[in-house]
Amino acid sequence: MTVAPVIDALQFSNWNRARFEEWRAGGLDAVHVTIAYWEDARATLSAIGRWQRSFDAHADLIRPATSGDDILAAKGEGRTAVILGAQNCSPIEDELALVGVMRRLGLMVMQLTYNNQSLLGGGCYESEDAGITRFGREVIAEMNRHGVVIDLAHSAERTSLEAIEISSRPVAITHANPARFRDSVRNKSDTLLRALAEAGGVLGFSLYPHHLAEGSRCPLEAFTAMVARTVEAMGIDRVGIGSDLCRGWGPETLAWMRNGAWTFAEDDPPAWPAQPSWFRTPADMPALAGALAARGFSAEEVGKIMGGNWFRLFAEGFEPQG
Amino acid sequence: MTVAPVIDALQFSNWNRARFEEWRAGGLDAVHVTIAYWEDARATLSAIGRWQRSFDAHADLIRPATSGDDILAAKGEGRTAVILGAQNCSPIEDELALVGVMRRLGLMVMQLTYNNQSLLGGGCYESEDAGITRFGREVIAEMNRHGVVIDLAHSAERTSLEAIEISSRPVAITHANPARFRDSVRNKSDTLLRALAEAGGVLGFSLYPHHLAEGSRCPLEAFTAMVARTVEAMGIDRVGIGSDLCRGWGPETLAWMRNGAWTFAEDDPPAWPAQPSWFRTPADMPALAGALAARGFSAEEVGKIMGGNWFRLFAEGFEPQG
Repeated sequence: MTVAPVIDALQFSNWNRARFEEWRAGGLDAVHVTIAYWEDARATLSAIGRWQRSFDAHADLIRPATSGDDILAAKGEGRTAVILGAQNCSPIEDELALVGVMRRLGLMVMQLTYNNQSLLGGGCYESEDAGITRFGREVIAEMNRHGVVIDLAHSAERTSLEAIEISSRPVAITHANPARFRDSVRNKSDTLLRALAEAGGVLGFSLYPHHLAEGSRCPLEAFTAMVARTVEAMGIDRVGIGSDLCRGWGPETLAWMRNGAWTFAEDDPPAWPAQPSWFRTPADMPALAGALAARGFSAEEVGKIMGGNWFRLFAEGFEPQG
Repeated sequence: MTVAPVIDALQFSNWNRARFEEWRAGGLDAVHVTIAYWEDARATLSAIGRWQRSFDAHADLIRPATSGDDILAAKGEGRTAVILGAQNCSPIEDELALVGVMRRLGLMVMQLTYNNQSLLGGGCYESEDAGITRFGREVIAEMNRHGVVIDLAHSAERTSLEAIEISSRPVAITHANPARFRDSVRNKSDTLLRALAEAGGVLGFSLYPHHLAEGSRCPLEAFTAMVARTVEAMGIDRVGIGSDLCRGWGPETLAWMRNGAWTFAEDDPPAWPAQPSWFRTPADMPALAGALAARGFSAEEVGKIMGGNWFRLFAEGFEPQG
């Protein structure tokens, strides 16, 4: 039996060689990394330029991925495939043609919104959600055509349901948990998770403390029990891991992620929450797989959760259509 | 004997289907087109987005080219390969990593300067020429590494000589004529053309009236005689065609090309000069080849001049190194 690639569907760290060595220690065959939160097209070019330099400098550990074949090649070479993505639509600004331009640069995944209202739809922290905008419909069609996977992790409920309906291809919620597990603005309703699963999408379970029951003190057993319940509801082919690990950043980066340039809020300097003891770094991925096996998942099921499902969604979703 | 691809090393027209049909009528297998004069990185993305749409909309006539294989494929398919290039270094602004980013987007040729001093070197209309700058040396190395061909058509003499010396790979002067033919600021000295040839570079003969003896009234025989003299000086492997054809534009575009945003000069609205009667559109390429044969060039020599030399330079020059 072929072992499925191990994939983490969301990380945003202060990338350097030590980080990439952690990926290898965790047996990660692919990681979807964030290159933009509020960055516009020009700033996104700089971020891509930095990744190009990393691909050159650390070619023994990482390689870029724009297809399923790239992920399989990385796995075969003992390297980690890096999938570039944006947590917001800011890289395309207000220009439809930039979807194709950014795809050409290797931007493979894009969230329609990041917390706030965007030009495409409603964010999960807004009090009102008017759904997908006129421009949003155009962008979804263009993402479908070029093979850019739609991510709804930080989108509001109506916007997410409409995106699933409008998209001709399965979509992703790369990093979030069921709201039943923890009632956080970022976690997702049963209704939304059902719609995601029915449309062939995948949910990436988050290890970010604010998304976990009991936060940083969440027991591993509570996490794996949540995985088991969600698999019952969504099906074994509809879930994966999207750790939301953010390694090596100071508070200024958390402030940027939260506040961008859209607010002057500076009251309490934000602090990064402590990770649960059982998932501090990407090197903890094998132990997580072991805990899923201990919960009763078969080896094949563990493989699907640890990356097999993301591999299918990404390999299919990155293919251009038409 | 394989017939060499027919290549025009510089055009800048108001692109539409009629223009692409002219390319086909002229038997053009590849055209190097300008997408930026003064445009910064962001504006260059929009230009690339427009070309992506043209490649989709007119796929029966054109295709993008980032390699010699792409040019040969276009020739085999009866389509014209489009090579994107910039006449200035404005698309990379002041950021070294943007060389690789723009190359990834298919920017295959870049001038170091356009008439004026740039961040890389001296332009041909400046009164002083301090040669290649600190940033310029870095960019030349990065262009060599990524496979972006250096174009010196609008650069000043010292800058051009230094670029030829610094570059580890042959460079291009895509559209200019010998100054002996017409003493224009844009035409090139014997010294420069000798250095270009010795370094394995290629000169593209311009059909722009201001670069021709007698301008718009330049006789075809005077042009082919100039070609013959230049081949004697530089060698049959060192010359090609870079027509500098600009079709379908109004005076506002000529003003943009000349003045960008760096001057308020608006005195005489500039006017496009009339093309010589024997070279009005790309459909006149076969007649030009015929005139070269009438001048005494063999079929193989005509093939080199009409595109074989550009094919070699581009096919080799577009390959990344290291």
